[in-house]
Amino acid sequence: MANQVTPPRGMRDFLPAEKARRERLLAVIRASYRAHGFDEIETPVMEDSDRLHAGLGGDNEKLAFGVLKRGLGFDDLQAASEPLDLVDLGLRFDLTVPLARFYASHRAELPTVFRAIQMAPVWRAERPQKGRYRQFVQCDIDIIGEPGIRAEAELLLATLATVDALGLRDSVIRINDRRLLIGMLDAFGFAQDEQDAVLITIDKLDKIGQEGVVAELRERGVTPTAVDALEQFFGRPMTMEYLPFGERAIRRALPQGADESVIAELAALGDAVRSARPSPSTPEGIEAQSALLEFDPFLVRGMGYYTGPIFELAHPSVPYSLGGGGRYDGMIGRFLGTDVPATGFSLGFERLVDLLELEADDASPATALLYDADVPLATLLTLKTELLAAGGRVRLVARPKNTKSLLEALEAEGFRRFAFVDAGVAGAAGLELRTLGA
Amino acid sequence: MANQVTPPRGMRDFLPAEKARRERLLAVIRASYRAHGFDEIETPVMEDSDRLHAGLGGDNEKLAFGVLKRGLGFDDLQAASEPLDLVDLGLRFDLTVPLARFYASHRAELPTVFRAIQMAPVWRAERPQKGRYRQFVQCDIDIIGEPGIRAEAELLLATLATVDALGLRDSVIRINDRRLLIGMLDAFGFAQDEQDAVLITIDKLDKIGQEGVVAELRERGVTPTAVDALEQFFGRPMTMEYLPFGERAIRRALPQGADESVIAELAALGDAVRSARPSPSTPEGIEAQSALLEFDPFLVRGMGYYTGPIFELAHPSVPYSLGGGGRYDGMIGRFLGTDVPATGFSLGFERLVDLLELEADDASPATALLYDADVPLATLLTLKTELLAAGGRVRLVARPKNTKSLLEALEAEGFRRFAFVDAGVAGAAGLELRTLGA
Repeated sequence: MANQVTPPRGMRDFLPAEKARRERLLAVIRASYRAHGFDEIETPVMEDSDRLHAGLGGDNEKLAFGVLKRGLGFDDLQAASEPLDLVDLGLRFDLTVPLARFYASHRAELPTVFRAIQMAPVWRAERPQKGRYRQFVQCDIDIIGEPGIRAEAELLLATLATVDALGLRDSVIRINDRRLLIGMLDAFGFAQDEQDAVLITIDKLDKIGQEGVVAELRERGVTPTAVDALEQFFGRPMTMEYLPFGERAIRRALPQGADESVIAELAALGDAVRSARPSPSTPEGIEAQSALLEFDPFLVRGMGYYTGPIFELAHPSVPYSLGGGGRYDGMIGRFLGTDVPATGFSLGFERLVDLLELEADDASPATALLYDADVPLATLLTLKTELLAAGGRVRLVARPKNTKSLLEALEAEGFRRFAFVDAGVAGAAGLELRTLGA
Repeated sequence: MANQVTPPRGMRDFLPAEKARRERLLAVIRASYRAHGFDEIETPVMEDSDRLHAGLGGDNEKLAFGVLKRGLGFDDLQAASEPLDLVDLGLRFDLTVPLARFYASHRAELPTVFRAIQMAPVWRAERPQKGRYRQFVQCDIDIIGEPGIRAEAELLLATLATVDALGLRDSVIRINDRRLLIGMLDAFGFAQDEQDAVLITIDKLDKIGQEGVVAELRERGVTPTAVDALEQFFGRPMTMEYLPFGERAIRRALPQGADESVIAELAALGDAVRSARPSPSTPEGIEAQSALLEFDPFLVRGMGYYTGPIFELAHPSVPYSLGGGGRYDGMIGRFLGTDVPATGFSLGFERLVDLLELEADDASPATALLYDADVPLATLLTLKTELLAAGGRVRLVARPKNTKSLLEALEAEGFRRFAFVDAGVAGAAGLELRTLGA
């Protein structure tokens, strides 16, 4: 057992510096969402297996880790016809299915319009690869019980404020609506039973480009005239004139005949969000803010449960999205028996952690006491107590022969002061506190 | 699926108020431990199954939830001779085994003396009962790499400071030492191979009393003369004179012939801790503080891996311990191949949450805006933005016909102010903010 001592494949340990960064980031997100009137909840990491496999999680359901039933014997193993027969619980693969279950369990105890924060790990049994982990944290906000764009407006404002608080300038929230997307596929002439497959291909637009999408659709053998119509639409003449998110921008990006009521809804959403954003104080701020929302007629979002507006958070520095979400009015009814409208936005916490440089929280200075071996323990501990009473944090470290590398390590860990302690020390007042790195 | 929508058996959802209490308590504990020079780390919730079942977790190993291997087929089920054959991962049942694995994985990146904080959930497949959950949070601190009582002194001071910060007055830390315990059993004449079983019985002393312990040992058929010696020791004449934790108290509580070097070590630990505690400012404080450490010659602590001083946190208001720990010098070597000394203290977070009334964090006042249906969305959102800029949190709520029960619910949720918003409102300056409950 002494060799190859590593965490399980695809899962990570967090050492102190990384753990501190993660906790700081979570604290910033939590404070921002709480200010916007959302309330944090928590559900168990496991759900009953049949709930996880109820068809609400799309492809992610297949990635759920199954937890073995208790008390199984040899006969049970022999009698099982598939692995799921041996499983009664599973680790959640997202925070949306547990939220729907939570709401169904506690509806009577929650406000009529419930704004939820969840910041918690999820698990997926994916093949581990760079940037993909089998345990990772999601930060979700959801508004349950509000059918109109009032909910989307609050979601987007809270998300934009959080992105501001994280210092993630130049972010863009791309917006589309499932109803417009389906309407567009109908207009092009794709058959109902082709549309799921067509959406999977269109979802690759960022990666394979318009020509790639057309080629893949031709190869798949979907209605050829519909593919022609899509290709023609891709090739339409466009001005490069910039339009802020709103009615004109939406209409220009869609084929003729799109649903006017949905366009009006999205335009009202854009107006409300823009007018309520805090005023930027610099010309660059105005520029950045005006680019914050963007209509994207080909934004798909993978999950099949979306029913209305959908969103994705993008940043010019990375080719993948930093989060996303949308309206999913049908899901809670699956657990509750009554339909309840819902919409949510999930931040990709792991991607944000990788992207952001967060300043260390230096409100409380950290002091290292490098003590000689002959300093009495009571003296050392009393010194520590005296320094703690003045605020900050204190670590006792045996003084090594060569202090240089120790002091460098302490500085890297965020310590700001140190003192040598010998047997003659007379209380904290007598300590010579030196600044690290000075 | 619409009926009986509950979290999995023995696991809990946390609604906003309870979640907020839990996060506040965790923040207090984290801040206190960090000040004392400990650093937080995190490990995955799962460990490789053979590590969890390496014999280091005592009876808890049997309670580990097993996670099914991926990609199993029918043939694998038929070929398995026991459930563990189908499992490659398991959910951790404590934070100590993962810490030992973590240290073995990262030793080169950690300080020579490493002070770890872990605040995280663990899982045990126990029969659910009142106060026992299948998912619960533990708060552990551990010092790895320090062989002497310097480590225990820092552990105890950090724990005492945390208990102070939680406002848990009149707590007692009961202390014993595995070496004294074993020495006592030897002195009474219990055979080596009886001692584990004898300790299990002695561990029930609080519940079944001295007579119960003697009766159970007689029933078990262990060396009768040794049971006689124990009974005689139980019945020895004792003065009720109060002795603070130290050499006299320890010697008086033990049979003749106890290991003098261990007694001296524990006494030095008590002296160091007492002298370094912050001075209490009231006579009651002095009284409370003098009762903080207590020697208990029959303190056992269940786990077999303890090798030196052991501790338990008790409070007069509850019959069970609120935490405990001890030195476990042998465990890390099981993963690392080299012995490394270690000692730790675990707070029973769930019991603390149940016991403590934490004040709500009112630094940021929460405001509810009760709006009429005809207020434009942009107006509402702009009001929210203006109030947010002044600090605090804001929730938008549609104004119901009868506001009384809504206002009561908001007050119960911690909202402190509210305002009615009608279509004529002209910015936050024009709002009439009222105090809830006034």
